[in-house]
Amino acid sequence: MNRVLITGGAGFIGSNLADSLKSNGIEVRIFDNFSTGRREFVAESGVEIFEGDLRTDRDLLDRAISGCDTVFHLAANADVRFGWDHPFLDLQQNVMVTLEVADAARNAGVSDFVFSSTGSVYGEATVFPTAEDYGSPVQTSLYGASKISAESFLAAYSTAGYFRSTVFRFVSVLGAHYSHGHVIDFVKQLVADPSKLRILGDGTQTKSYMHVNDCIDAVTAVRSQNDFDVFNLGVPDTCQVMDSAKWIISQMGVDPEFEFTGGSKGWVGDNPFILLDVEKAKQMGWTAKRSIESSVRDTVQWILANPWILEKV
Amino acid sequence: MNRVLITGGAGFIGSNLADSLKSNGIEVRIFDNFSTGRREFVAESGVEIFEGDLRTDRDLLDRAISGCDTVFHLAANADVRFGWDHPFLDLQQNVMVTLEVADAARNAGVSDFVFSSTGSVYGEATVFPTAEDYGSPVQTSLYGASKISAESFLAAYSTAGYFRSTVFRFVSVLGAHYSHGHVIDFVKQLVADPSKLRILGDGTQTKSYMHVNDCIDAVTAVRSQNDFDVFNLGVPDTCQVMDSAKWIISQMGVDPEFEFTGGSKGWVGDNPFILLDVEKAKQMGWTAKRSIESSVRDTVQWILANPWILEKV
Repeated sequence: MNRVLITGGAGFIGSNLADSLKSNGIEVRIFDNFSTGRREFVAESGVEIFEGDLRTDRDLLDRAISGCDTVFHLAANADVRFGWDHPFLDLQQNVMVTLEVADAARNAGVSDFVFSSTGSVYGEATVFPTAEDYGSPVQTSLYGASKISAESFLAAYSTAGYFRSTVFRFVSVLGAHYSHGHVIDFVKQLVADPSKLRILGDGTQTKSYMHVNDCIDAVTAVRSQNDFDVFNLGVPDTCQVMDSAKWIISQMGVDPEFEFTGGSKGWVGDNPFILLDVEKAKQMGWTAKRSIESSVRDTVQWILANPWILEKV
Repeated sequence: MNRVLITGGAGFIGSNLADSLKSNGIEVRIFDNFSTGRREFVAESGVEIFEGDLRTDRDLLDRAISGCDTVFHLAANADVRFGWDHPFLDLQQNVMVTLEVADAARNAGVSDFVFSSTGSVYGEATVFPTAEDYGSPVQTSLYGASKISAESFLAAYSTAGYFRSTVFRFVSVLGAHYSHGHVIDFVKQLVADPSKLRILGDGTQTKSYMHVNDCIDAVTAVRSQNDFDVFNLGVPDTCQVMDSAKWIISQMGVDPEFEFTGGSKGWVGDNPFILLDVEKAKQMGWTAKRSIESSVRDTVQWILANPWILEKV
């Protein structure tokens, strides 16, 4: 890699990726509309910033991608909760935008297209841990549907020879620049009132979290061995939301009472259980080095050291 | 079924489906923009015709779908050959349009959504016959990518409880109203000049064809046993393009010399081999009754009895 473009480069994962690549001497450009990306995450990074909308600012995208050998396409609508209130949003933000970036990459002669997908594409899987070749995925959210759609179009581009695609299906990610999800929600509640914590569902939802540094290790180093390959990224174990709540409380040194909203799911379209088989990425030399507990504690530390983020969520 | 809407209802499969349902006393509405659909196919069918563009005429779609219990969404761009000249066409015609119809169906309270997908979604499969739960599909065309995308969004609608979806993955279909593909291309050539026949590739491309009457038998009778199910439709055997050419010649009573353009594929994105495992549809009581040879011969007979179609292709 010499020069790269990161879409969504001011976001949580994108800005960590930008810092990592930059520190390795790679020329980094980011494209972001700053709707969920944050200027604070890239202000001192020394990357070149292209501010625009990937759906409509095609000229700007073409300029940003020109001369890049690798594109990391991370920009997306990542909020699965409100899919049914805006039934075209995932299609627009995650499928149509991916095709715009793929078309620009094709025209610019980009050699590598790296795409952030999701473990949600396995729907309510019946096999755990779930491997990349799980054969009966039934999408349970517009978000998951949009990500598998984008993957499929990238496969078509790659088998036609336009560029190599490497797709990563993530579990949820934690770490520096984390600004969306239950950990920050819990910290925010506890900063405001350390005496109680309200938890969606019954707290038994099983989750799997990866540290963003482990994620970046894979995204920068693992590449498809064919025109197109998919790699699950995650940790080998899981936790319940309750475990996470206890680690957060311990890290903050508070002792609240719990309030549960009830039910076994947090929200419509929430996946009740995700555990990914990461053997394929391991065969490429990658493995997650951090436990879920250390990822949660590290995230709490980062939030408490950057309290301005609590005003933004 | 009491009242149904067929999108693409003036097309090859749609118009056969309309005739079949109408003859069973069902009230049939069709929605078509007549870009590839033909007025001749529905002129005497007695169906109610809504002429418009599914991408832009949402009001008309809402009127057409109102009061329908079942939607057969067959409208699509089905020409895989020119995908890379128009890299957004399959997205627009096959994914975005499907979401418009799904959204309209959700709002109208439709109970059953029947969708025509394709055996192309298995890409260059490595397992034959290929079953619905084949776990390593890599899309090799924008067309295949668009169809798996549309399937995935319908799954999300169905698991959210808005309607039941039944997806059929077809092999190529032959029979009355056939107007696109190698059989009509060959007949047209031979009507113009019975002394020679030009064949794309080397004639060894392996294909599998189903008769449209068998297709309609499945589409009208087989339904998902869950919120969302996928059924392959096809015949148990295959032929080479050369076999088909010989049946056509025999049926027409001509004796041309063959010219081959060379290569093992007909065109970019053409799938070299499709053979579907149809066990799942068989378990629902369906089976293809007609051989590939009888489907090819029946199609030639229909074309020769309707020579006006040759002027349209």
